[in-house]
Amino acid sequence: MPRSSSAQEVARAARAALDAKTKPPGSLGRLEEIAVRVATIRGTPSPGPLRASIVLAAADHGVAARGVSAYPQEVTSQMLANFAAGGAAVCVLARAAGADLHVFDLGVVSPPCDARIRDRRIAPGTGDISVGPAMSLGDAARCLAAGYDTAAELVAAGTGIVALGEMGIGNTTSASALVAALLGMEPEAVCGRGTGVDDAGLARKVEAVRQALAVNRPLPTDGPGMLAALGGFEIGFLSGVAVGAAERGVVVLLDGFITGAAALVAERIAPGTKAAMLAAHLSPEPGHRLVLDTLGLEPLLDLGLRLGEGSGAALALPLLHAAIAILEEMATFESAGVTDGGR
Amino acid sequence: MPRSSSAQEVARAARAALDAKTKPPGSLGRLEEIAVRVATIRGTPSPGPLRASIVLAAADHGVAARGVSAYPQEVTSQMLANFAAGGAAVCVLARAAGADLHVFDLGVVSPPCDARIRDRRIAPGTGDISVGPAMSLGDAARCLAAGYDTAAELVAAGTGIVALGEMGIGNTTSASALVAALLGMEPEAVCGRGTGVDDAGLARKVEAVRQALAVNRPLPTDGPGMLAALGGFEIGFLSGVAVGAAERGVVVLLDGFITGAAALVAERIAPGTKAAMLAAHLSPEPGHRLVLDTLGLEPLLDLGLRLGEGSGAALALPLLHAAIAILEEMATFESAGVTDGGR
Repeated sequence: MPRSSSAQEVARAARAALDAKTKPPGSLGRLEEIAVRVATIRGTPSPGPLRASIVLAAADHGVAARGVSAYPQEVTSQMLANFAAGGAAVCVLARAAGADLHVFDLGVVSPPCDARIRDRRIAPGTGDISVGPAMSLGDAARCLAAGYDTAAELVAAGTGIVALGEMGIGNTTSASALVAALLGMEPEAVCGRGTGVDDAGLARKVEAVRQALAVNRPLPTDGPGMLAALGGFEIGFLSGVAVGAAERGVVVLLDGFITGAAALVAERIAPGTKAAMLAAHLSPEPGHRLVLDTLGLEPLLDLGLRLGEGSGAALALPLLHAAIAILEEMATFESAGVTDGGR
Repeated sequence: MPRSSSAQEVARAARAALDAKTKPPGSLGRLEEIAVRVATIRGTPSPGPLRASIVLAAADHGVAARGVSAYPQEVTSQMLANFAAGGAAVCVLARAAGADLHVFDLGVVSPPCDARIRDRRIAPGTGDISVGPAMSLGDAARCLAAGYDTAAELVAAGTGIVALGEMGIGNTTSASALVAALLGMEPEAVCGRGTGVDDAGLARKVEAVRQALAVNRPLPTDGPGMLAALGGFEIGFLSGVAVGAAERGVVVLLDGFITGAAALVAERIAPGTKAAMLAAHLSPEPGHRLVLDTLGLEPLLDLGLRLGEGSGAALALPLLHAAIAILEEMATFESAGVTDGGR
């Protein structure tokens, strides 16, 4: 992390600034924690208004053939077109939050033709992780590099907050396998219903994850190897985005379970990346709390969101902007002439 | 409530509209519940963008003399000036949320001279509820009427969401007394630390509430009598705002514990008012959960906020706007050409 030598100083200065504001100390609760964290990540107790970009990455997953999702694989490509056209939930929520939305194709099976989709294609979908690796080690590195470079581009364009979003039929299965492998958990403890698979689908998902772990035997210490084995082009890309953004002192706002898996991989690859992260919300996926605990993150929202796309991150963005505004705009006891009886 | 005969129809239409959107059914969790509730309150499955107004009411409390707050009484007037000048937390958060902020003086001891403060003064502070009634029955009715008329004015000016906020040194004591009386609870189960009183202050607060209940013996069935006994000019005013807004099909967004007490009084005075309410957040005040349970409300945020002023309501407003935008702007499976495998 840049400026890490002064992180404690910045946090102290931000806390002092908050305590001078016309409110009882700590009375804005977690909003004050957000303000301190954003200040610390940005390396200044006065982080100013920040431009937010949602990075939405889509890709297909070979494991979808195992019937692990409630939706057919073609939906990934269809939704990619919907993202580009502005009709999906995250498009609406990004507009509502005043965030830029950047849509990336990391490898859907049938890429839609739309200039608003940025081509970062690795291949038309990963391999089926229940029978072999998702991708080669070279492809895993390519995903990471593409994400890392994308973060650099966004930061150069003025982004101060990067929110992560994803889409890919079957990608909760890939994410569940990654989380189970990285945290040493049983598939049953990690797998959930994703966007809404039924009991039989959930059983197939648990079995697919079990087979993926047995067949691939990835080393939990090896981030790129883990990605190659259990995959997700979009997951690897988002890991790269997180590492690149964190290195540049940019806030990384996680969405749900799948971006959480990407964050775990990022932290494995570049320890310390988690210091730049905030968790937007708690997903109903059983593995999500484990992921957030491992990253030392407490979710801001708990609204039962299970859509992905970065929708939860978009919904939490106003809390970040509000926390920064408190730091920047609120009067102090001194400036407002208010008696500070609380000291 | 207006349009109540068709409330179920509107809710059904809103749910159907949400289920046609390009997302698995229910995958936006509580955001979908918000959308349905707002649609139902507004009486249309297409409630459109709504203008939000924060009604911030301040008044002083005689019981402050009992040492129930961490701050001296003069802070109420000082903060009122701070609200008018735009430096307080709720001012910052209202701007961040794009909401109008309307500041009302219901009776502080030393009214600041500022044209941005609307004069609805009843008296310079209530009586000390631990030794007698807060106000006369006439004054209680005047608070309610002022709030009711204010709601009508705001609605006439285009407000679709009214958020409630309050300020008044000692007003968690008044609110605790009201909640204890209305719900038949012991003072210990209701009283908390407010904006940050210490152990001795909390003990004084519990004792003040106990005495207030013993001295005044209000009938829990009598809303205006309850207000007169245990008071809070700003609390009564906000009760009136809630009743007036709800009658006109306007969404009433509660803030924390004190606006919750006002909401309880509103529901006692005009049963059914609660159908127009949403709860912005859960306060750490022990009585707040009881209030919300009684009103059948589930808080949207849980961020440890204990400032009041409408700050939590301002923070939750973006969730309401986002929920409405989902209903209004998202593409359907049909319009976007996405396969709906979830049906």
